[in-house]
Amino acid sequence: MFELGSLRVPIVQAPMAGGPSTPQLAAAVSGAGGLGYLAAGYRNTASLRDDVARVRELTSEPFGVNLFLLAEPAVDDERLAIYADRLAVEARRRGVAAGQPHFDDDDFAAKLAAVTELRVPVVSFTFGCPTADQVRVLHERGVAVWVTVTEPDEGEQAHRAGADALIAQGVEAGGHRGSFADTDGHGELSLLPLLRLLASVTALPLIASGGIADGAGIAAALAAGAGAVQIGTGFMRAREAATAPAHREALAQPRPTAVTRAFTGRRARGIVNDFMRDHGDTAPSAYPHVHHLTAPLRAAARQAGDAEGVNLWAGEAHLLAEEQPAAELVRRWDEEARSALEQARARLGT
Amino acid sequence: MFELGSLRVPIVQAPMAGGPSTPQLAAAVSGAGGLGYLAAGYRNTASLRDDVARVRELTSEPFGVNLFLLAEPAVDDERLAIYADRLAVEARRRGVAAGQPHFDDDDFAAKLAAVTELRVPVVSFTFGCPTADQVRVLHERGVAVWVTVTEPDEGEQAHRAGADALIAQGVEAGGHRGSFADTDGHGELSLLPLLRLLASVTALPLIASGGIADGAGIAAALAAGAGAVQIGTGFMRAREAATAPAHREALAQPRPTAVTRAFTGRRARGIVNDFMRDHGDTAPSAYPHVHHLTAPLRAAARQAGDAEGVNLWAGEAHLLAEEQPAAELVRRWDEEARSALEQARARLGT
Repeated sequence: MFELGSLRVPIVQAPMAGGPSTPQLAAAVSGAGGLGYLAAGYRNTASLRDDVARVRELTSEPFGVNLFLLAEPAVDDERLAIYADRLAVEARRRGVAAGQPHFDDDDFAAKLAAVTELRVPVVSFTFGCPTADQVRVLHERGVAVWVTVTEPDEGEQAHRAGADALIAQGVEAGGHRGSFADTDGHGELSLLPLLRLLASVTALPLIASGGIADGAGIAAALAAGAGAVQIGTGFMRAREAATAPAHREALAQPRPTAVTRAFTGRRARGIVNDFMRDHGDTAPSAYPHVHHLTAPLRAAARQAGDAEGVNLWAGEAHLLAEEQPAAELVRRWDEEARSALEQARARLGT
Repeated sequence: MFELGSLRVPIVQAPMAGGPSTPQLAAAVSGAGGLGYLAAGYRNTASLRDDVARVRELTSEPFGVNLFLLAEPAVDDERLAIYADRLAVEARRRGVAAGQPHFDDDDFAAKLAAVTELRVPVVSFTFGCPTADQVRVLHERGVAVWVTVTEPDEGEQAHRAGADALIAQGVEAGGHRGSFADTDGHGELSLLPLLRLLASVTALPLIASGGIADGAGIAAALAAGAGAVQIGTGFMRAREAATAPAHREALAQPRPTAVTRAFTGRRARGIVNDFMRDHGDTAPSAYPHVHHLTAPLRAAARQAGDAEGVNLWAGEAHLLAEEQPAAELVRRWDEEARSALEQARARLGT
């Protein structure tokens, strides 16, 4: 079974559902000694199988697949209806109809069966914790199980379920908060405190995620006790990522980010734009209902190249992301991390 | 003039206005090889002078003093009046009258004159940036000037004013956000991204502040490029700190923190309690108006030992704070930081 310590470079590419993640990116990162990743979210199971096959054509190195694990949330139907009415106006302006808000579980069972059958080396979960039985089945197939957590209590739950490692996602991270529930005031810890608080309740290996996009950041997370670092936004401008052009451009600008439910009904961090400003205060907690509601609006804005109408997921350090081949980024970050640790030692007089 | 690199241990005690900071704590930290600190905020200038004299009786090592640098903010008088009405009810319940909301600048000019005359080794500023002239006068007296910043643009401004170092305060930090203005969506970066983004715009030494309360956290901040680490909450349970008993107790409980304007009218992080929950959404941005308004309520709650009615300032990692003599904490954190860096090097195969 895959061991975190076997990575030549302690860099894990973050799964970036909804566009940026590609088999090419995953293969480039794995080929460079890190751990490449596929995002199963928002894809059908057949496409996921194709992607896994494609990665295996491109590299013989291990890689990971991330699955959404969703329980149907309690939704405030009145607030959701108000939000739908509000977006209907904006949809008309864009010449489309808003989508139908509804729950679906992103075909979890089929995708879980696929990654189990395909013996994907690492399978991680976001938005929830697998059961001990689900973990056992994966382990029987030699699949390592990682769980995304944002609070010590989630880490303890994942530990009890038998997870092999925890992806500690700080509030700095771009994209969705991976918390088990979309609750205000829970799952908002910054990365460094989260790592240290997790280390006080579990000895599981930690993969540090959020706001890291250079070698010094990697060195910092390792010093804080992480066994590896997960980087998403730092790869979004990589040649192999399928990030939309307007999104790439926004990443390179010194624009603030914020956490919003406006696009999907679940807290997620992106670059502040008109859509977020206009709707962030009104959007209810209702995932993936709101995701479906806004999908046609976002697609129309994307097609029009209008960055103000799409979700520009980005971590707080997005300005550090560079337009480079992924393997070159991995190589450079590894080198920078070594030098950052030496400088830190010098400061301590070691 | 004081140089950050001259510290035997790269640990700076955070100034904790309103109680916890004492000359004894500052002297203990300085004596242990770190940099002790006095908080000038909420004290009169005569007391500040006494405290400086007391530190100098207790240690011959360098120390710092932090000053509030406040410009009178634009205040929404209607929202402030609504908040005052709301608190009048709670004040009656506690058998006191609410305070009179008003602006004052914490006697900035007199305190600046005092620390200049007394040639305090390090003077730092919070809530604003000193002018180049103010920095020059301090430099002429051999006083090093540090400025608290929460965003890259604030760092650039402080650099232009002639600051010798920047205190990079991440959103994890307990107590007030040190931002130059109390604006939502500005000054909310987590520590690691803040350090890396600051390093990309200025070569000034950085003191990392926020959410650090153990040696691994210190090692992490140094690896991220900081020249030293500032610790506040981690010292709040120290023997030498004058932290109120109810506050000490709350720090040792696994309770969440949040940023609120409820107590003072400026964003500050504390342990979530009844007062914060009841009033956080209503409190306007009006500092120190709201500070004066709530002062009698907080004093009454403190006297009654009621932790639900006082500001329990705390950083996100408060659960790591330990009841120990400050010198012992400094010694142990230094040792832990060294070992954390060695472990990180091993992970990189260095």
